[in-house]
Amino acid sequence: MRAEILSIGTELLLGHISDTNATYLAQQLAALGIDLFFVSQVGDNLERLTETLARARSRADIVITTGGLGPTEDDVTREAICAALGETPSVDPTLATDLRAFFAGRGIVMPERNLKQAWLISCAQPLPNPRGTAPGWWVERDGVIIISMPGVPSEMKRMWEYEATPRLRLSTGALLFTRILRVAGLGESTVEERLGDLIHSENPTVATYAKQDAVDVRITAKAASETAARAQVDAMDAQARAALGERTVFGVDTDTLARVVLKTLERRGETLGLMESCTGGLLASLITDTPGSATVFRGGVVSYATEVKAQFGVPESILDAHGAVSVETARAMAQAAREQLGASVGVGVTGVAGPDPQEGKPVGEVHIAVATNRGQRDTSQQWRGSRSDIKSRAALTALNLLRLTLLDEEAAEEPIASGG
Amino acid sequence: MRAEILSIGTELLLGHISDTNATYLAQQLAALGIDLFFVSQVGDNLERLTETLARARSRADIVITTGGLGPTEDDVTREAICAALGETPSVDPTLATDLRAFFAGRGIVMPERNLKQAWLISCAQPLPNPRGTAPGWWVERDGVIIISMPGVPSEMKRMWEYEATPRLRLSTGALLFTRILRVAGLGESTVEERLGDLIHSENPTVATYAKQDAVDVRITAKAASETAARAQVDAMDAQARAALGERTVFGVDTDTLARVVLKTLERRGETLGLMESCTGGLLASLITDTPGSATVFRGGVVSYATEVKAQFGVPESILDAHGAVSVETARAMAQAAREQLGASVGVGVTGVAGPDPQEGKPVGEVHIAVATNRGQRDTSQQWRGSRSDIKSRAALTALNLLRLTLLDEEAAEEPIASGG
Repeated sequence: MRAEILSIGTELLLGHISDTNATYLAQQLAALGIDLFFVSQVGDNLERLTETLARARSRADIVITTGGLGPTEDDVTREAICAALGETPSVDPTLATDLRAFFAGRGIVMPERNLKQAWLISCAQPLPNPRGTAPGWWVERDGVIIISMPGVPSEMKRMWEYEATPRLRLSTGALLFTRILRVAGLGESTVEERLGDLIHSENPTVATYAKQDAVDVRITAKAASETAARAQVDAMDAQARAALGERTVFGVDTDTLARVVLKTLERRGETLGLMESCTGGLLASLITDTPGSATVFRGGVVSYATEVKAQFGVPESILDAHGAVSVETARAMAQAAREQLGASVGVGVTGVAGPDPQEGKPVGEVHIAVATNRGQRDTSQQWRGSRSDIKSRAALTALNLLRLTLLDEEAAEEPIASGG
Repeated sequence: MRAEILSIGTELLLGHISDTNATYLAQQLAALGIDLFFVSQVGDNLERLTETLARARSRADIVITTGGLGPTEDDVTREAICAALGETPSVDPTLATDLRAFFAGRGIVMPERNLKQAWLISCAQPLPNPRGTAPGWWVERDGVIIISMPGVPSEMKRMWEYEATPRLRLSTGALLFTRILRVAGLGESTVEERLGDLIHSENPTVATYAKQDAVDVRITAKAASETAARAQVDAMDAQARAALGERTVFGVDTDTLARVVLKTLERRGETLGLMESCTGGLLASLITDTPGSATVFRGGVVSYATEVKAQFGVPESILDAHGAVSVETARAMAQAAREQLGASVGVGVTGVAGPDPQEGKPVGEVHIAVATNRGQRDTSQQWRGSRSDIKSRAALTALNLLRLTLLDEEAAEEPIASGG
């Protein structure tokens, strides 16, 4: 199966927005095992769109369009499909009723030009769009499927997931199940190396993706039923974890390091405090991006000036002997974070984000420590990269060190009969 | 002039990366007044690339390609250009010498397959690439220009700016000068409304772009000389500022709110401390994203738990009487930030980022205060949006309130004969 994507909208060609819809759909098609050979961005122009659509139909089995389904004259995707197929649209009474109801529900009269959003042609089924007024079209003609969806990413993604994917699975006669393993502390090439031949597996497929906050390993199985596909994914999941090292996989699918750490802390009845310097608030911000973080997170001190470290509990003697950028100071910061913020777990981060060295320490030198009521752990790193790269790596490494510390503590605890 | 962009690389079609190069180039072309009608993403496949390139040449005056200039067999952009033009490449001795020198400088022997990065054809000039091993190509044949650049964004952007744009200006016989006015505190539709007819000006052109941290107003003039173009931009700049309100424009081009605020504080010999709650460290992180922020920024307290606010200097009486989410608490936080962090200027931010209400206050209620040694300012807002939207708007609004406070204080100061 070959697919082709048409991203429609003059705003793309003016650079007002990036074509993230195409990236999303490309990932989805890869997971479905469907080849994608071309993506085209076209403006809101009937002639150029019709020409591009006709070419796509001539060389693909599935043509996916996003955008151009709005009610204005500029929105010409339906017109282009009609022109390419030689069809004449008519207003579908059910769609028209739904559309008028949508407007009535908001207490406004529907502008008559919106009626073109209720158009249909004989070879098209409507794809419902509960998030907006523009239904999509599922068109089958001459062995080629056209899937037309809105350009608004939230509307498009819902329609793709709930309307287009199930129909595609019926058409392709197979069920797919996907799981993403999220890996921390390893680079993409190390992940690939450890996975070895698993990468070449054909069903399930195994692929790696370097994300900003982790390396993702995506496992996708195709089978006659979801149960069978899920069982194949489970088996590959176990193999992949064994190859990667169980502790490197911090979560699945949409998990983030912060969410996983906060969940563990919450389960254990712990609270968290931070003292961060080179990450400059980013570590706290990653934690507070997670809904519900207030249950566990007491707060943090961004101790940018050295005097602020001393004032909030880092002993002057340590600062004098080892400097503000040292593992000793990181340890003292983690301890001070616990005490100052009344938290059971503390994290300290100090280092040089650049662009200039500090205290004779090079840009990219970072020290991170975690203190709990059972002890402490630390790590010292030397990274390259921009100021924001170093901030980001330091914050993620701190979260991962905290995760590993908690894992070790849980493993060391006596097994107790679980009763409540 | 019509341009067309070809983004080359199988990683695009697998959704591993988004095509941000096309977005950048689309913006650049718009600023140059060059029309862009199509963008195509093609994989690393000689046949499909040659076909797409030939079509682009048939309908555009300028064809811009990114990607496919590496040394491996997968990299076939040069081959596709040769195929489309019927040319045979040969190794250019100068380029080959440069390439060997690049490797020698790193103490490694050049792999022979890299030699194809020294290829040239008779109608091509090389475009130097100081950031990598792949020079670009500037090809002129049959009235159509092909500009081939690497896919790595930093290499591509440098080559575009320093090599391609000057040649394009020579070819198009006009000089362009662009300035971006960065606007805070107004939405894009308000900016457009205030600009009124200026938006329809043809030379200079005026266009608005909603960015994550500001609304940008881009002014571009085309003239026979840079001096003339700059004078036209200056005149339009003055008109635009008058229409927008002088105080809404916080900077130009690549300025950020944080950088502008830090510069003002540094010039005045002030220091900055924060106490932030609903922004959860994001405000500190925006400030510390700016190189050199350590000169001014003392640090911050992320006072997530209410007790942490009290512990770090917010009077219990205020918390009890008004609650943690109140303008009174924001004011006390700004004052506490000054005192606790030994800073001359303090900022306090408190609010409800969601997803749940807090103390009976709705999601999106935010209070921000700024305290200086001359007095204080505050603002209370009610926003809609996701947790991260609210964090981001609150942090940017705090920076803007700080900027406006400093502007007012400077305006109120007695004019003093400047002497040092």
